Amino acid sequence: MSTFKERLAGAVERHESLVCVGLDPVPERLPAGISRDAEGIAKFNHRLIEATADIACCFKPNFPFYGALGAPGFEALKKTIDAVPDDVPVLLDCKVGDIGSTADRWAHMVFVELGADAVVVNPYMGTDALTPFLEYEDRGVFVLCHTSNPGAVEFQRLSLDGAPLFEHVVRRTLEWDETHNNCGIVVGATQAGSMARLRR
Amino acid sequence: MSTFKERLAGAVERHESLVCVGLDPVPERLPAGISRDAEGIAKFNHRLIEATADIACCFKPNFPFYGALGAPGFEALKKTIDAVPDDVPVLLDCKVGDIGSTADRWAHMVFVELGADAVVVNPYMGTDALTPFLEYEDRGVFVLCHTSNPGAVEFQRLSLDGAPLFEHVVRRTLEWDETHNNCGIVVGATQAGSMARLRR
Repeated sequence: MSTFKERLAGAVERHESLVCVGLDPVPERLPAGISRDAEGIAKFNHRLIEATADIACCFKPNFPFYGALGAPGFEALKKTIDAVPDDVPVLLDCKVGDIGSTADRWAHMVFVELGADAVVVNPYMGTDALTPFLEYEDRGVFVLCHTSNPGAVEFQRLSLDGAPLFEHVVRRTLEWDETHNNCGIVVGATQAGSMARLRR
Repeated sequence: MSTFKERLAGAVERHESLVCVGLDPVPERLPAGISRDAEGIAKFNHRLIEATADIACCFKPNFPFYGALGAPGFEALKKTIDAVPDDVPVLLDCKVGDIGSTADRWAHMVFVELGADAVVVNPYMGTDALTPFLEYEDRGVFVLCHTSNPGAVEFQRLSLDGAPLFEHVVRRTLEWDETHNNCGIVVGATQAGSMARLRR
């Protein structure tokens, strides 16, 4: 089986694209003619995926936009992921992380039950909270480092030995990637200074 | 409407109990005679709740144990929460947190769709990632501070600007509680030293 990084690189190359299509649907904003419920969301996403799959390198549904609609929302998410062509990977955004047995259930939900290719996780609880995700070595694990929102400065920029917390997270993520070769980092596009510093 | 803190204090007093009953079901471990699927989980939880509701001050289901079973698991979680008597609050463990519009969807899932009384959240992204939860002022918001797992030392104990990260989180949580009067903190029972320090 190919790795997530290989599948992503393949889609980038074939479609000459760095576009990741977000799928964060809100029923109230669906166009006329589509029912404003979980079923409508599945239908809308299906059309969106058909219209963009040849110019996208990735699709990124956001879990709570589906979970907020209950079991039918969960079903709509599953249908959405199934509708993405096999040659374009799916990154499920849910930003979770928990102790071993619980993280194991999250990873099962994301990778087995929903069949996503990659996930976004939260590093606050440390290595053992992410290991159950990392052990799916054919999937990708994106670790929140420095996020784009105003509150990102409150903890992520606190400083130790001259380095902000998010740089400690980046360093640890590089270690996880060394072991599992399946990590990415999340740095908000509003954090241009941090991004420049991290690239060096 | 009463606050979460009032409802919790009421259950503690009426049942003379500090016992919070965890509901983290795994189908493979259900007793004989109960189907090893989402329906079996709902039935098992129902019996467990009936057997313990008069000696519990709270029930705490753990989201991914249900999410891992897909839409039927979500339905089983909803049935489980509905089965808890109104005078005992339900704390949904999911340890999430995200930017505004996404956190709004998480909060809707937890408090409206599932009807939980309280939630566990992750503070890494800062205030605006938790505000949508905090604004449900009749519900409770427990913030991860110092967790019980081995990886807790990796980031939570980093000494940032003179204090461990988890103390910065505690201080910020006290501010959120000052504004919304609905916060709690999570400190693992393995962190006795930190707990003693925080109590002072």
